[in-house]
Amino acid sequence: MGTQDETGARIGLIGLGTMGAALASNIADKGFDIAVFNRTTEVTRDFASNAGPLADRITPTESLEALVNALAKPRAIILMVPAGDAVDAQIDALRPLLDADDLIIDCGNALFHDTDRRASSGKWPFLGVGVSGGEEGARHGPSIMGGGDPDHWARVEDIMTAISAKHDADPCAALMGPGGAGHFVKMVHNGIEYADMQMIAEVYGILRDGHGMGYDAIADVFDAWNKGQLESYLVEISGIVARARDVETGEPLLSVIVDAAGQKGTGRWTAIESQHRLAPVPAIEAAVVARNLSSRRDERARGEAIFGSAPQAFDGLDHGTLEQGLIAGKILCYAQGFEMLSAATRDFGWDLPMSRIAQIWRQGCIIRSSMLDDMARVLDASPGTNLMYTDHFSAILKQTHGALRQVVAQASLNGHPVPALASGLAYFDAMRTGRGTADMIQGQRDHFGLHGFEHTNGKTGQHGPWAKN
Amino acid sequence: MGTQDETGARIGLIGLGTMGAALASNIADKGFDIAVFNRTTEVTRDFASNAGPLADRITPTESLEALVNALAKPRAIILMVPAGDAVDAQIDALRPLLDADDLIIDCGNALFHDTDRRASSGKWPFLGVGVSGGEEGARHGPSIMGGGDPDHWARVEDIMTAISAKHDADPCAALMGPGGAGHFVKMVHNGIEYADMQMIAEVYGILRDGHGMGYDAIADVFDAWNKGQLESYLVEISGIVARARDVETGEPLLSVIVDAAGQKGTGRWTAIESQHRLAPVPAIEAAVVARNLSSRRDERARGEAIFGSAPQAFDGLDHGTLEQGLIAGKILCYAQGFEMLSAATRDFGWDLPMSRIAQIWRQGCIIRSSMLDDMARVLDASPGTNLMYTDHFSAILKQTHGALRQVVAQASLNGHPVPALASGLAYFDAMRTGRGTADMIQGQRDHFGLHGFEHTNGKTGQHGPWAKN
Repeated sequence: MGTQDETGARIGLIGLGTMGAALASNIADKGFDIAVFNRTTEVTRDFASNAGPLADRITPTESLEALVNALAKPRAIILMVPAGDAVDAQIDALRPLLDADDLIIDCGNALFHDTDRRASSGKWPFLGVGVSGGEEGARHGPSIMGGGDPDHWARVEDIMTAISAKHDADPCAALMGPGGAGHFVKMVHNGIEYADMQMIAEVYGILRDGHGMGYDAIADVFDAWNKGQLESYLVEISGIVARARDVETGEPLLSVIVDAAGQKGTGRWTAIESQHRLAPVPAIEAAVVARNLSSRRDERARGEAIFGSAPQAFDGLDHGTLEQGLIAGKILCYAQGFEMLSAATRDFGWDLPMSRIAQIWRQGCIIRSSMLDDMARVLDASPGTNLMYTDHFSAILKQTHGALRQVVAQASLNGHPVPALASGLAYFDAMRTGRGTADMIQGQRDHFGLHGFEHTNGKTGQHGPWAKN
Repeated sequence: MGTQDETGARIGLIGLGTMGAALASNIADKGFDIAVFNRTTEVTRDFASNAGPLADRITPTESLEALVNALAKPRAIILMVPAGDAVDAQIDALRPLLDADDLIIDCGNALFHDTDRRASSGKWPFLGVGVSGGEEGARHGPSIMGGGDPDHWARVEDIMTAISAKHDADPCAALMGPGGAGHFVKMVHNGIEYADMQMIAEVYGILRDGHGMGYDAIADVFDAWNKGQLESYLVEISGIVARARDVETGEPLLSVIVDAAGQKGTGRWTAIESQHRLAPVPAIEAAVVARNLSSRRDERARGEAIFGSAPQAFDGLDHGTLEQGLIAGKILCYAQGFEMLSAATRDFGWDLPMSRIAQIWRQGCIIRSSMLDDMARVLDASPGTNLMYTDHFSAILKQTHGALRQVVAQASLNGHPVPALASGLAYFDAMRTGRGTADMIQGQRDHFGLHGFEHTNGKTGQHGPWAKN
C-alpha cells in the first residue's frame, strides 16, 4: 500500500473544461488545496492565472507525473474528461503513476455500466460520482450522487459535502450505493429532466400556437406558475428564457432559436436501461423521441407542406387548467423515475436511498423543485411505493388528473403534439385499471403462437379452443 | 474445402420444438429429404413416427455425428434452438464435425447483434434467418427474412422459396442483406406486431368498457372491419378471439383470460435498438410499456382502490370513427417501423430491400395485411420515404387523422388508456409541424448548461444574454 504523506494538495483534478474548471474553483473556494492538470497546458495556465483570490490553493501542473507528485498521500484524483474511451485512456495513463491505495474519482457523465466495469476491473479504489447542476451548479453547489465503496467515499466526503448545494443546511451530496449506483441515479435524474422539459415545451406550444400569446405574456405565465405548486428551477428558467431577447437583434430569444433539440445521450440511456429493467418510463421515452423528431427539420417541413401545419389556434383551456395538467404530468414523470430507481434496487441488489435521493435533488440540480420536499417525506415513510399511490400525491392527482385529460384531449383535437403529457396520462390510467385489455393480446398470442394464457381460475398455460384442433 | 457428395439428405435440422417440428414437416412436405436431430432422442423418434406420409423424406438421427453423416455435402443444417447461449453451444458442438464449406442456418429468433457476431466470428458459411408466422406459418408457409452472404443464401434459396408463404405466386422469402440483416428485419416486424396488437387492444377496451358491448358484438365489429381497409390477420383473429368460448366453462374466452400480457423480448429489443439508431418508434415503445404495466396486476388493483377504475362508459365515438382512427394508427405504426429499417440501411451500410420487405410480409407472417400491398407499391417508387409522406398514405391519413384525434381525445377524457394510438397521433403531428417547440428546450439547455443553440440566421453555438454575464 502507499505511504501516508500529508505534504501536498488534498485532491487533484484532470480536465479543465467548463465543468472541470467550475468544480476545481468550487473545491478551492471551500478551502481545499487542489492540483490541476489539463492535456493542453495553456488551458491549465489560463485557469491558474485567472483564479484570482483562489490562486493560493490551486497548483497548476503540466504533466501527469507532476500532478501525482503534487498530491498528499493517499492521493485522490477527480477525472472530468469526456465520458467514454477518454476515461479509460486517462485511467490507463494514470494508474502506473499511482500507489495501490490512491483513489480515482470519475465525476463525468459516465454510463453506469462503464463505471461498474471500471470499479470492478481493478483492485484499486474507484468512485463514480454523478454531478448535476450545469456550470453554475458545479461552481457554486451541485447535487452530488456518489457510487462506490463507503470507505473510499469517506475519504472525500468532506470535500463532496463542502462543495455541494445546501438545502437549508442539508448538503446535497450522498453515497447512493456501490459501483455504478451514483451514475445510475444521475442518469435517471437526467431522464426525469428530459420529460419535465418536454412537458413544459408542450404547454409552451399550446400557449404560443394555441392561444396565440406573445413571449412576454408566456413568461408571465411561467413566472406565476413558479410561485405555486410548480415552483421549480425548470419553470423558473422557462420564464427567463421566454422573456429573454436576442443579443444581436433584440427579437424575442425563443423566436430566433431553431427548434431542433440537442442531446448528449443520458435521456436515451435512461430509455434503453428502462427497457432492460422492465421499468416503464413512457414520459421519458416520449421526451427522447420528441427531441429526435425535432431534429428532423426537413421532414417536418415536408409534412407541413403535405398536411398543413398541425397546431391550430384554439381556446377552451384556461391557464389554471394548463397549470393543473402540468402538475399532474410532473408528478407522473417523477413517479416513473423513482419506479426505475426501485427496479435498480431490485435487479442490482442495491439499496438506493430513495428518500435521500429526493433530498439531494432539492437543490443544485436541474430538476430541483419544491415538490421534492414532499417526495422526500413520503419516500421516507414508504420508500418502495409508487409516488402516485402515496396519500400526498394521490390527493394532488385526484385534483389535477381531470385537467391533464382536458389538456391532452384539446391538444390532440387541435394538432398540438403532447407526447409526454399523453403518455403520462396513459400511464396513470393504466396503473389504476384493475381489469385492462391485455386479455385481447394474450388471446391473440395464444391463437397465433400457442403461447398460452393465465386463466382467471388461476391455471397457467391455458389455451383457447383452437388448441384442440 | 469439403467434398461434393450428393448422397444423403439435402438439409439437416436441429431442434424439434413446436417451430422446429413444423418447419421440418414443411420442408419434407415440399419434397426435400431432411435429417433431423433433437437433444432428447424420444422427441426425435416421436416426430419421425408421427410423420405419416412424410416419413419417407425424414431421417431421424440420434447423435450430432449421425446427423452430419446423414447429409449430402456440402452440408446445410438449420438450427431451431432457443435464442441466446443455446445457439452458440450448438454451433460449438457442431463445427468440429463439419467441413469448412458446410452451412449453418439459424432460423431461431436471434438478436441480430448475435447473428452479426456469429456470422463474422468464423470463416464458415452462416445464415441468420428470421421466420414469422407462428406454428401454423412454419408448417404451411411462413414469411422468411434471410441474412448473410448471397452465395450461401443461393445454396438453400430453393428450399426457402418452396416452404415460404405465397402471395399469389410470389414467394414470401428473400435475402435482406448481410450478417444480422434478416434477424433485424424480423425484429422490426415483431415491433410493428406489438404496436398493431396494442392499438387493437386499445380499441377493444373502448368497445368493451366505453360502449359496454358484449364479446359477440365486439367480434362482429372486428369481422366487419376485416372486410375493409383494416383487412389483416390480426384484425381477423381479434374477431375469432372475441367470439371464442372457454372450453371448460363456456364463458366468453376473453372474460377468463387474465389481462397480463407476456413477451419474449423482440418488442423490447426493437425499442432498445430504435434508441441506438435514433429512429423513433414511439408506438412500439408504448406497446412494450403497456405489456409491462399489464403484468403489474397488484399495483393496478391498488391504483383502482385509490382512484376508482379508470375507464368510464361513454358514447360519442361511432364504430366508423374507431375504424378510421385505427386505420390512421396502423399506418403510423408501419411508417415508424419502415423508418427504423431505413435507419439500419443508413447506419449499417445495408441496402435493405424496402419494397421487397413489404412484399414478403403480405403473407405468412403475423402482421400480414392488405395495406402491405400498397406499401410495397409506394416503397418501390420511393424506398427511402416515410410512408406518411407518400401520395397514397398521406391521402388516407388526411381522411382519417381527424378520427384518430376523436378517439384519443374521447379516450383521454374518459379514462381509457390509449398510449399507442396517442403516441401515433403525436408522431403524426410532430412530423407535420415545421415550427415545433424545441426552441424552448434549447433555450433551457443553453441557460443551464451553455449548450448553445442554432440561430435562425444559420449560426450555430449561439447563446442567450446570460452567456454575457
